[in-house]
Amino acid sequence: MIDLRSDTVTKPSEKMRKAMYDAEVGDDVYEEDPTVNKLEERAAEMLGKEKALFVTSGTQGNQIAALVQCKPSDEVILESNAHIFLYEGAAISAFAGVQTRVIQGERGVMKPEDVEAAIREDDIHFPETGLICLENTHNKAGGAVIPLENMKEIYHIAQKHHVPVHLDGARLFNASVATGIPVKKYAEYVDTVQFCLSKGLGAPVGSIIAGSAEFIARARKWRKRLGGGLRQSGVLAAPGLLALQENVERLTEDHENAKVLADGFSTINGLTLESVVETNIIIVNIAGTHMTTDQFVSELKENGVLAGAFGADTIRFVTNNGVTKEDIDNVLKIIQNIINA
Amino acid sequence: MIDLRSDTVTKPSEKMRKAMYDAEVGDDVYEEDPTVNKLEERAAEMLGKEKALFVTSGTQGNQIAALVQCKPSDEVILESNAHIFLYEGAAISAFAGVQTRVIQGERGVMKPEDVEAAIREDDIHFPETGLICLENTHNKAGGAVIPLENMKEIYHIAQKHHVPVHLDGARLFNASVATGIPVKKYAEYVDTVQFCLSKGLGAPVGSIIAGSAEFIARARKWRKRLGGGLRQSGVLAAPGLLALQENVERLTEDHENAKVLADGFSTINGLTLESVVETNIIIVNIAGTHMTTDQFVSELKENGVLAGAFGADTIRFVTNNGVTKEDIDNVLKIIQNIINA
Amino acid sequence: MIDLRSDTVTKPSEKMRKAMYDAEVGDDVYEEDPTVNKLEERAAEMLGKEKALFVTSGTQGNQIAALVQCKPSDEVILESNAHIFLYEGAAISAFAGVQTRVIQGERGVMKPEDVEAAIREDDIHFPETGLICLENTHNKAGGAVIPLENMKEIYHIAQKHHVPVHLDGARLFNASVATGIPVKKYAEYVDTVQFCLSKGLGAPVGSIIAGSAEFIARARKWRKRLGGGLRQSGVLAAPGLLALQENVERLTEDHENAKVLADGFSTINGLTLESVVETNIIIVNIAGTHMTTDQFVSELKENGVLAGAFGADTIRFVTNNGVTKEDIDNVLKIIQNIINA
Amino acid sequence: MIDLRSDTVTKPSEKMRKAMYDAEVGDDVYEEDPTVNKLEERAAEMLGKEKALFVTSGTQGNQIAALVQCKPSDEVILESNAHIFLYEGAAISAFAGVQTRVIQGERGVMKPEDVEAAIREDDIHFPETGLICLENTHNKAGGAVIPLENMKEIYHIAQKHHVPVHLDGARLFNASVATGIPVKKYAEYVDTVQFCLSKGLGAPVGSIIAGSAEFIARARKWRKRLGGGLRQSGVLAAPGLLALQENVERLTEDHENAKVLADGFSTINGLTLESVVETNIIIVNIAGTHMTTDQFVSELKENGVLAGAFGADTIRFVTNNGVTKEDIDNVLKIIQNIINA
Repeated sequence: MIDLRSDTVTKPSEKMRKAMYDAEVGDDVYEEDPTVNKLEERAAEMLGKEKALFVTSGTQGNQIAALVQCKPSDEVILESNAHIFLYEGAAISAFAGVQTRVIQGERGVMKPEDVEAAIREDDIHFPETGLICLENTHNKAGGAVIPLENMKEIYHIAQKHHVPVHLDGARLFNASVATGIPVKKYAEYVDTVQFCLSKGLGAPVGSIIAGSAEFIARARKWRKRLGGGLRQSGVLAAPGLLALQENVERLTEDHENAKVLADGFSTINGLTLESVVETNIIIVNIAGTHMTTDQFVSELKENGVLAGAFGADTIRFVTNNGVTKEDIDNVLKIIQNIINA
Repeated sequence: MIDLRSDTVTKPSEKMRKAMYDAEVGDDVYEEDPTVNKLEERAAEMLGKEKALFVTSGTQGNQIAALVQCKPSDEVILESNAHIFLYEGAAISAFAGVQTRVIQGERGVMKPEDVEAAIREDDIHFPETGLICLENTHNKAGGAVIPLENMKEIYHIAQKHHVPVHLDGARLFNASVATGIPVKKYAEYVDTVQFCLSKGLGAPVGSIIAGSAEFIARARKWRKRLGGGLRQSGVLAAPGLLALQENVERLTEDHENAKVLADGFSTINGLTLESVVETNIIIVNIAGTHMTTDQFVSELKENGVLAGAFGADTIRFVTNNGVTKEDIDNVLKIIQNIINA
Repeated sequence: MIDLRSDTVTKPSEKMRKAMYDAEVGDDVYEEDPTVNKLEERAAEMLGKEKALFVTSGTQGNQIAALVQCKPSDEVILESNAHIFLYEGAAISAFAGVQTRVIQGERGVMKPEDVEAAIREDDIHFPETGLICLENTHNKAGGAVIPLENMKEIYHIAQKHHVPVHLDGARLFNASVATGIPVKKYAEYVDTVQFCLSKGLGAPVGSIIAGSAEFIARARKWRKRLGGGLRQSGVLAAPGLLALQENVERLTEDHENAKVLADGFSTINGLTLESVVETNIIIVNIAGTHMTTDQFVSELKENGVLAGAFGADTIRFVTNNGVTKEDIDNVLKIIQNIINA
Repeated sequence: MIDLRSDTVTKPSEKMRKAMYDAEVGDDVYEEDPTVNKLEERAAEMLGKEKALFVTSGTQGNQIAALVQCKPSDEVILESNAHIFLYEGAAISAFAGVQTRVIQGERGVMKPEDVEAAIREDDIHFPETGLICLENTHNKAGGAVIPLENMKEIYHIAQKHHVPVHLDGARLFNASVATGIPVKKYAEYVDTVQFCLSKGLGAPVGSIIAGSAEFIARARKWRKRLGGGLRQSGVLAAPGLLALQENVERLTEDHENAKVLADGFSTINGLTLESVVETNIIIVNIAGTHMTTDQFVSELKENGVLAGAFGADTIRFVTNNGVTKEDIDNVLKIIQNIINA
């Protein structure tokens, strides 16, 4: 099977398995796991933040950002297709008690003036704006990179209004590799940032949330409440460290494969790219094939390719470290055949 | 002062004051206030619902609808300018723990197909859709009437997907009077409905929430938690009953006055109506006057007229039972003078 | 019927009805109701607090105290039979998201050392202590007065640990009248205080919550979310003002009647007072009569007396302004007859 | 260092590390991790429940039990020293919105009649009882075993009142090994059960929550919201499986070591056991030594022994797989020396 459903399906490398086997561990609830501590220090350093915390998933990191920085009845501004809004089971309202206020962006990019207009004034009828969330790269927008300049402008508006900014950077390293801008630079324009060690970086489990020392102290407590206070989690931190050391540059391969796939799609009758491909996600509209997404996905599967329906008429393909250039060529042939048939 | 800020400023009539004075009362927490009981029966009957409950405000009624019908982490679909979304302090997320999912409507009217598309499928990443909220008349859309047919279509979609529908009918009687369609008819296409006895109907305090007997039993308990379990509330129910008996038809006067005001505005240079005026709300854009809304409101006030800024460049005027035809004529002259100056 | 179920059943006096009829009103959401403003000023003055706010019930006042002063995951310390814990539908956990930590008191009085021991230390496993709640008089403890000295000691502990203290003073004026200590004195040892205008003071609806100006500003917003932002609520504030002006001293009658009733009970075979009667509540154990509480309450009702079961084997009687000395004498005869039969 | 602070400090064995290295994995959010699936099946089978779910900690399992089975404003009955009440950061009120209702047990055992008395009747003032939580073994009661018969009686009461029962069985296998009663037997008298793979069973990370298939389906979604939806978590499930296969019987060693330690303590002047030692936890009162717990813990540490203060005057020791019989003998000598000095 060529699995292009998501970069979350990546399996740990031999080296990562070896690292788990060898990991020096301790009880991380007592903050005594040396491997976790090392990972958190390394991550904070890369992001240019005071402190970082290992969490079990991107969702957990995002929820903690809201739990620490908001109070119930606050409003959170996010792009209308943000992962936090669409794919986290409304956890942000269930746990942090905040209302989502979405802004229609273009390829995931919110206009700074729209953000400013959405910040609430002081009025007995209004919630207070408690957080602005950005997502970079933006999953639903097809792995789109949010320009640094846009982040900077939004951050300045946020600071003017004393509203913190959180970055859902589940795939922040994809943005960094695609633009050549260090992750530290992106993190400069947000108060808190989350990125995933799983996904393209290839670790089996885990994400990082980073921010000020005070933020992380409070985050640690909310992580415990969420059930994310682990014991000998060095066994997860060890492959996480490897992910940061060895897999960042490798993301370019995923991006190159994605471009090849996208270029191939653009030559196949019936397929229309939903957007330019900047990183490792390709969203393609199949309306022209007169197949339903269910049919299309099912035919792909029968031919050894896994991809996912992603809204009406669209299919998402995500390149990842389990997929080679040859696989991509095969996928294109398979799809051509399916459409021909 | 001619007060056109809102129809919430209406003061109780002599007759209502007399009714309060004479009201037969009991302890309503024990369900022993005969006047409250009478009001609730009358309201249920008018709406064609099994039971009704007196609540202290429209906000309280709306919040109860969500608290009873949703569970935390559900998603609630509402129009992007709904009162529940814009003006209730994000209470729905703070108390019911639900995520707001807004749909851009046209004059407050959501397309049924947009509503259907927003209902979530079953997926580990998705919240469940717990409630659809309508607002009729729609305040922010300038007192727009939501067509019965639209409500019907949305209700059928909702039923197909087993999602309850709530009507924020704070000004439902305005819709009814404007169209000649009985409120019962509107209530037919929703599971629960809230309307205000204050506002245009002129009672000093209170609203009604109605639905099935089971819904009201649970609503009663949530009302208690919200602090809306009152004692001798017959003193509020008495004018509420009068509001229903005597003030419904009177709303036509407000609508007529609103039309006169709107027609006048359309002849004044620099003013542009934001939309057709169907009931008692007029939203006018003053960009053409080159004044800020703060300036405009302030000048009006100096000249004895109260109105409210309602977003960038727009002013809201709401006709009500404290404003006569003569007042309207005066308001038009005053505004003409302000603009001329 | 002689209604001794609660002092909540009190009906507004002729004078109160007249006050409602005459009340000068405005829209209180705009803070323009002169009668509400007057009541709030008067209440703040009596309590020696910067500001006060009219709320629709004691429950609403208590919930607001927690919503403003706590954050979700805090722990609230209260006596094990506190009204907030037993009788408010767990609203404090549902809305404010706080955990209740109860301390077994003696006649409603918590030992200061127990309160201090319950305040949480800083630990990754522990919630933070967000509020200490007192109740004076203490309903479930039979209208017991919490001594000023006890309140003072607890307040000093609370301040040492930077934890605010809230007083559920639904019947604070009963404590004040019974001891001769002004309510202001009691309010000195808490940060926020709630008392009821209904109950013994005889207003039809409403309570007061008071505290610092900053607290009240935030309370006003939470009141709006709870649906307690009313319009022409001067109609309720007017009898509320009368309650404060004319009904405070009258509470001594209720206390005298309660003593007479208690003394009578102590001479009736089969009845045992659960505790000394200090104010207007008498809790009596009927185990010695070999009747169930349901039977006892039902027999009373057949003989024209209303009282309420209040836990296993106990019945609560509450004297109030609808009950005269003669009524009390009759009640004693009726009960003697029931037991004789 | 001889680490007796907790059995959470246990480090994965060589065999477990090998199992992680070799683990067959997949993306568990898609339910495609074969090792996780195997662990969940094995756990469900051992517990006699339809389904089980891997969660990242005992806290996460307990929180999920409440989130699935309760609605906000419910009341949860638990023993006054339950872990869920004392040590989970009030997460149950913050997330599930439920009120904690504690019952003073004896050695962690609640009297069935007390549980029944605490279940709420139907009343407008009362919350509904949404869950009863048991803890077996009971940590704060010194690893006390809750008798099967007690669980059975409480379960029958719960069923009569239609209230589900959850078992916090973080150390359920300790109870089982100590009594010879299979875990399946304990699980028979609860609706849902959580146990830890870390702690005495020695896995580095993780717990299991089990119940009906419907419960687990909903639990899976709440786990995702909490951030517990992992990717290639087979790397954690693999040592978890070993924990169940190889480490259950080994717990007897911890129990034997605990008994030796307790017997030793009982011969040392100044030490008093807080309770009989039934499993792997020893709580000892050091008041007789005239040292503070901080001093005592600090002296121990200087002499190479780690233990934890556990309330005023008491120290907790927990035997675990990193502590040998020789270590125990040394600990006794060290403590004797500290006290002699």
